[in-house]
Amino acid sequence: MPKLLILSSEIEEYRNLIQQANLPELDEIVSSPTNDCDIVLGEPKLIRDALPLLSTPKWIQSIYAGVERLMDSALRRDYILTNARGVFGELMSEYVFGYLLAHEKKIFERYQSQQSQKWDRVESGVLHGKTIGLLGVGSIGAHLAGTAKHFGMKVRGFTRESEASEDVDQYFHADDLFRFAEGLDYLIVVLPRTEGTNKIVDTYLLDALPSHAIFINVGRGNAVDETALVNALNEGKIAGAVLDVTEQEPIPEEHIFWTTPNLLLTFHTSAISYPEDITKLFIENYLLYIDGKPLKYQVDFKRGY
Amino acid sequence: MPKLLILSSEIEEYRNLIQQANLPELDEIVSSPTNDCDIVLGEPKLIRDALPLLSTPKWIQSIYAGVERLMDSALRRDYILTNARGVFGELMSEYVFGYLLAHEKKIFERYQSQQSQKWDRVESGVLHGKTIGLLGVGSIGAHLAGTAKHFGMKVRGFTRESEASEDVDQYFHADDLFRFAEGLDYLIVVLPRTEGTNKIVDTYLLDALPSHAIFINVGRGNAVDETALVNALNEGKIAGAVLDVTEQEPIPEEHIFWTTPNLLLTFHTSAISYPEDITKLFIENYLLYIDGKPLKYQVDFKRGY
Repeated sequence: MPKLLILSSEIEEYRNLIQQANLPELDEIVSSPTNDCDIVLGEPKLIRDALPLLSTPKWIQSIYAGVERLMDSALRRDYILTNARGVFGELMSEYVFGYLLAHEKKIFERYQSQQSQKWDRVESGVLHGKTIGLLGVGSIGAHLAGTAKHFGMKVRGFTRESEASEDVDQYFHADDLFRFAEGLDYLIVVLPRTEGTNKIVDTYLLDALPSHAIFINVGRGNAVDETALVNALNEGKIAGAVLDVTEQEPIPEEHIFWTTPNLLLTFHTSAISYPEDITKLFIENYLLYIDGKPLKYQVDFKRGY
Repeated sequence: MPKLLILSSEIEEYRNLIQQANLPELDEIVSSPTNDCDIVLGEPKLIRDALPLLSTPKWIQSIYAGVERLMDSALRRDYILTNARGVFGELMSEYVFGYLLAHEKKIFERYQSQQSQKWDRVESGVLHGKTIGLLGVGSIGAHLAGTAKHFGMKVRGFTRESEASEDVDQYFHADDLFRFAEGLDYLIVVLPRTEGTNKIVDTYLLDALPSHAIFINVGRGNAVDETALVNALNEGKIAGAVLDVTEQEPIPEEHIFWTTPNLLLTFHTSAISYPEDITKLFIENYLLYIDGKPLKYQVDFKRGY
């Protein structure tokens, strides 16, 4: 009879949704860690704090995609960790293509023209025919690839090894990072935070992009050498950047990102975890769990995602 | 041996593209009207001026979708008129969904937050699950419907009678305009300028929309009662409007649209005619023409489009 611990600022929503589902065998739902909780559903930061208080956690479901807070090698790993996947692709697509279209349709410039009462027929750009490069092609990257194809774009994907999405026209791996970046109109980072992704977007990679390229990071801040990015924007080596994630969040007051030219900040809002979506995913895994079957979306502690 | 008259500010581009195609039987390409031109390819405004100078025009291909300048009943109609169709759907989709996403993702608000150095995690809206209403479902409306379905939206279409696009979930006709409008999150006008479309977006229709609705006009300015729209925006009856087209273009200096709250102007830039696209369409029709077959995209002078 499993006992479920929920660790979330939206505890009441999760509790209600899960109670409505009348899950078989579920004994009790609690919101404070006790040593007999088998299952945990929660935010990685809260899970991390609770880990020492649990005696035999069997399965922990993260509400977020990013679980880097649980990857510290000093932390226990004697449980199955699953993260949230498959629920952020649509949100991320809306975000990424919203900013790409805002750029191509010159939405800010046209607003400025209107403020100056200037009938300005400067031509819009188009997505159609452009090349997008996805640095990381998991479930979010695959969704972005599908939307890119809908808009008639060419899609490149850079991955460690997987080539799962059929919407990617061309895959690149390992040493091919610069060939991947060459000639891209848009570079999108969708990588998890791991040691292998630290500062993968550095001076060399930014130099490999055309000067009209737009860079968007919806993965994790660690992927970007932030000084290199500021320099690239100041020197016009790329046309713009949209950062949903940064090394420090919130960004401190005096940070140069606030005022870097052609840099847009969106404060880690691109894809939030909706309890409705996460609960569906939790229920799916819960039913596998009580049947003794392998869970979906398991995190590999060695790989870090 | 047909003689082709091209009437366009991009005459050299059109001439080169058509010459490269080595069209069979094409005798001569000219840029000034002479009375022996059989075929005309051009902008409606220039065609209108040239019409009296042609003795027996057989086929006229408009470079634009909108041909209202040739619908004046005082003008000759002793020729086949075809307009540009099927080439603007992608551009219009990029434009419409660019503005819808800019609205949902709060792109302007986040920019303001950045200017004030404020880490503002206000939640974004989503397209997914929202209802879009297409007032007019020709080839452009059908393309918008396809993009709406890609983003997981519900699609309503209002048409005179056709129900051609399968991406429209629900069609409305004739007296059902208010039922069509009720509960829409987004209302998009994609209508041609005809007498039947004059001020179809009036106080009553705007009143039928929810107060969070966004209105976009990519059709023609005549479809909107502009005073009613300004009032609706001033009174917060709808949340915003994006106008690519207006009754007067350019909008005169003192016009209230420049400063109406939550109104964005884009100066008739949503879909321009690219010579490469239009030439493809012209060649397709030319080959039908010399074979004596019915042409594509014929305009019905009575209907007006």
